[in-house]
Formats: sequence, structure tokens, C-alpha cells
Amino acid sequence: MSKLLIVGTVAFDAIETPFGKTDKILGGAATYIGLSAANFNISSSIVSVVGDDFPEDYLKMLQEKNIDTAAVEIVEGGKTFFWSGKYHNDLNSRDTLDTQLNVLANFNPVVPNDYKDAEIVMLGNLHPLVQLSVLEQMSTKPKLAILDTMNFWMEDAFIEDLRKVIAKVDVITINDEEARQLSGEYSLVKAARAIEKMGPKYVVIKKGEHGALLFHNGQIFFAPALPLEEVFDPTGAGDTFAGGFAGYLTKTGDLSFENMKNAIIHGSNLASFCVEKFGTERMENLGREEVQKRLQQFKELTQFEIELS
Amino acid sequence: MSKLLIVGTVAFDAIETPFGKTDKILGGAATYIGLSAANFNISSSIVSVVGDDFPEDYLKMLQEKNIDTAAVEIVEGGKTFFWSGKYHNDLNSRDTLDTQLNVLANFNPVVPNDYKDAEIVMLGNLHPLVQLSVLEQMSTKPKLAILDTMNFWMEDAFIEDLRKVIAKVDVITINDEEARQLSGEYSLVKAARAIEKMGPKYVVIKKGEHGALLFHNGQIFFAPALPLEEVFDPTGAGDTFAGGFAGYLTKTGDLSFENMKNAIIHGSNLASFCVEKFGTERMENLGREEVQKRLQQFKELTQFEIELS
Repeated sequence: MSKLLIVGTVAFDAIETPFGKTDKILGGAATYIGLSAANFNISSSIVSVVGDDFPEDYLKMLQEKNIDTAAVEIVEGGKTFFWSGKYHNDLNSRDTLDTQLNVLANFNPVVPNDYKDAEIVMLGNLHPLVQLSVLEQMSTKPKLAILDTMNFWMEDAFIEDLRKVIAKVDVITINDEEARQLSGEYSLVKAARAIEKMGPKYVVIKKGEHGALLFHNGQIFFAPALPLEEVFDPTGAGDTFAGGFAGYLTKTGDLSFENMKNAIIHGSNLASFCVEKFGTERMENLGREEVQKRLQQFKELTQFEIELS
Repeated sequence: MSKLLIVGTVAFDAIETPFGKTDKILGGAATYIGLSAANFNISSSIVSVVGDDFPEDYLKMLQEKNIDTAAVEIVEGGKTFFWSGKYHNDLNSRDTLDTQLNVLANFNPVVPNDYKDAEIVMLGNLHPLVQLSVLEQMSTKPKLAILDTMNFWMEDAFIEDLRKVIAKVDVITINDEEARQLSGEYSLVKAARAIEKMGPKYVVIKKGEHGALLFHNGQIFFAPALPLEEVFDPTGAGDTFAGGFAGYLTKTGDLSFENMKNAIIHGSNLASFCVEKFGTERMENLGREEVQKRLQQFKELTQFEIELS
């Protein structure tokens, strides 16, 4: 069985949407990635850091989903990373109200020994040098290293570090605006081609409610977001997508472009659940049957039978 | 062989995009619909009106594509409808610079006798009462009446007329913002359900570069727009989409939901050509082989092979 190594934040979020607001709840890229990938019954480990204010119950919940949290460092006397944001009425944009780096400011990731040969590595959004450090600790070159990042690291202060890690990964997942910023190209087709030249053989461009595109060597695959009656809270949707993508590839071990299409669909499918409730709530309580049922909906939504002549 | 009756504008456009600008060129909803539907080698007729300033060559070009233009009234001493617009840099929005209704102001559509029993009627964007008049002239109830409209007709002055024609059609095609305006629902799933209650059994929501959705009785189908290196001029893309949709259904005569999925794909496919050059240029010179080739690209873009358990 392949193993999935996940690095990213484990954090507190406080979220406000047009539908309500939360106090500090469980959040963080690695949390969403882990919960999503756990749907494939794989072995995974999270490398992260929290303060001693982080509830033991949250770690237990992750462990019960077969996610190894031994490499989640708990800093005595430290406070957990905290993010607070408010979504606009269309849920497509948000304002960050507060960011407290706390223990994340001095995070030195340590890859556990039994994951130094993990076949798949998922680098959640973090300082590029932290992501790079994880890659450098691997004893065996992973079959697939996947990088998620964001526009913050594309600013002058970080772009050189970001380029270093981009050059070392196989897949990058970013949103459409970030792809444009990183490449300087407006057309996503051109942007993806430019980013492929920076290193990654596969470029995944996330368009939120407008779906996701997978580019590879002139080939393109597209998965829509499932049209939902109501999107309740988009927080974590991108990480859930990435976690589903990485988890499915870890389970199947098939890294062909055709199978990556399936991974994109699985990621989109899982993300469609994530947005239905606040934070991680929906992902903590997700049944195999409803996941399969919604995959069937994805088929009906996208598959057609045109005969070509 | 089924027949397609098209009503809509035949017009002059002057277009400015980030890539250049045109003088008065051929435009109009019915023009784009007709050119698109012509790819299916069907019999079609356009009901419209132009002034005597309208070049005979334009009509000849349409006739050479087997589009009957006998019902395009030529008003002696009248001037053809003129629209001028300028697209913003992202090509997703535009400003109207000038609209001269001219002969359109007093347009009384007359359905030719041999099209009063047309199986498919495509009502391009026009005053709702003009659209209604066409439906009322039919001797046989069409198997499928398709309505395209826009936000302009959703204002207080016209909304009651619009509701009358909406109640009488089988399919409505509108864009996402218009669907929200018409229904008062933000969620497109809810918007489509609300619009279905107004009459149309099928609701097509066009999202431009983000694709199109087909809703029917709880079922949803989605077609992406083909990711292009460059979108040159979006003018007419929505009409080309509708023309492909109507043309394919006219050719096949199969009005099942499954076949409508194919019609949506054909419409999206043809629209992907329309935007590659200014105005109607690309659609006037479109070969069967390139259309088939791009359909294959649509398959590769969207089709996957997940086994459900």
C-alpha cells in the first residue's frame, strides 16, 4: 500500500458567511487534505505544528480516520495558527479579518522516518522554504510531489523561494488568478504552458464554483464543480479537492493522465461536500455511500454519447 | 427532414476588443444562429428585417449556406439595426457604445407559409411580443420552441410581455446573471427550478467562458467552454451556441434529455470557433473536419472512466 505524506497547517479558523458565523473551529490546509484523502482508506501522515491550546480531541478525530498525527508537533506554551475571514455575499471572495501566525512563525517540519519513502507527497499551502525542506528530507524521490500555494508567496519577498519549490514538484495546484499572476499570461491555456516550463509536468488550475482544469503536455481535462442548491462555506474546498486528488492517486498508484482525470473528479466530488457545512463538519461525517452516489451525479452531469464520424 | 425557423436580428455591428476594432460588419442574433445551425445541413429560414443599406452579398452568403432569407424583410429607405460595443480587457464584460434600432423599431415578423409547420423554432433575442407573434403564427405547435432573451427585457417595462412568451416555450437560454435576475435566486440550481415553473421544461444557463448548464426536472448536464489560447471576440458566442443546439436537435429530431446533452456539446463546440475571429468571419468559413476534430477535443476534455462500486 502506498503512503501519502501531507504537510500543511493545522489551525483554528473563525469564519463568517452570509449564513452565519463560527467561533474558533478546526481548520488548516493539512486538516482538510487529510480528511479528504482519508476517504480512500490509505496510510497518511500529517507534518504540521500546533500550540498547546490545540484540543487533543481534534487530533484524536484525525487519528480515528487513520491519519498519523505523530509528526504534528505540539509547542508547549505556544498558540496555534489562527485565521479569521468573512465571505462576501456571492461567496466567491472574502476578506481576511485576522491572521495570527503564532507557532507557524518558527515551524521546522520534521518528516517522520516511516514516511521518508512515501510515494506521494502533498505540500499544502505554506512558506515555500518549509515545503522545500520537506522534499529535501525524503530518502526516496516521491513518485509524485504535489504543490499547493497561493498569491501571497508570489510577491517579491517570496517569489524566488516559490520558484525553487515549483521547480522540484510534479504537480502544482493553484487558482485561476494565481496562475495568471505566476505566469503573466491571461489565457489559462498559455498560463499553464508557462507554468509547466517552470517545472511541474502537471498544472491544475482551480476555478472554485467554475470547476478545475488539468493541463499536461498539451492535453487538457476539465471537471466542473457540482452545481449545488446552496454553498454554505467555501473554506477548505481547494484543500479538500487537492486531498481527494492526492488520496485517489495514492490508493490507485496509477499516475497516468487518464487516471489523473479520475483523481480530478474524485477531488471535485469531495470538495462538493466540504462546502455544504461550516469548516470540517461535513468532511468529518462523510459516508462511503453518499460519496459514491455523488460520483454518479458527476457522471450524469458530464458524460455524453456523441458519435464522431 | 425537420425544419428550423429562426427569428432574430440581422444587423450591423461595430466591435472593439483589446485586439482591434471593426467598422460596420455583419452581425445580429439570427445571423449567428443561422450560420451555426447551418453546420447540420438542415433546412432553415430566418425571419427578420433590414434596411436597404444592407448588402445583398450578406444575404447571398446566408443563402449559400442553405438558409432561406425570403422572410428577411427589406425596408425601402430604412436603415439596418446597428449595435456598437467595446469589450473590457478580460473580454467578460462590455460597454454598449451605440444602439440604433432603425427598422427594428417597427418590426412585424411574418412567418413564411412553408415554415408555419417548422418542428423547431428558435426565438433569438428580440422584443418578447415579436417573439410571441412568431409563435402565434405557427399553424402547427412546434415540437420544440427555444427562447433566447436578455436582462433588458426583464425591466419593469417589458417583464410582463417576457413572462407571456416564457410561458409558451419549451427551452429558455439565458446567462447566469439573467437567470438570477429573472428568478430572484442566487443559486443557479434554485434559479433554474424557479424558471422551470414559469413554463420552460428545459432551462439552459450560459456562463460564457465557464460553460453552460442544462436543467430539466431535477437533472443537470454541464458542458465546459473549450479552453482556448486566445478569445478574440466573444460577440455572437451565445447565439452560435443556441444555433448549434437548435440545429443539432432539428437534424436528429430526438428531443430526449440524453440527446439534448449532445446538442449542448455541439452548441459549445461551435461557439468555441465563433470567438476566434471578429464577428461572423470564423463561422462563415468553417469546415466539417475541424468541427469534428474539436468535438473529439471536447470528449477528451470531459470524459472519464471511473468505475462505481
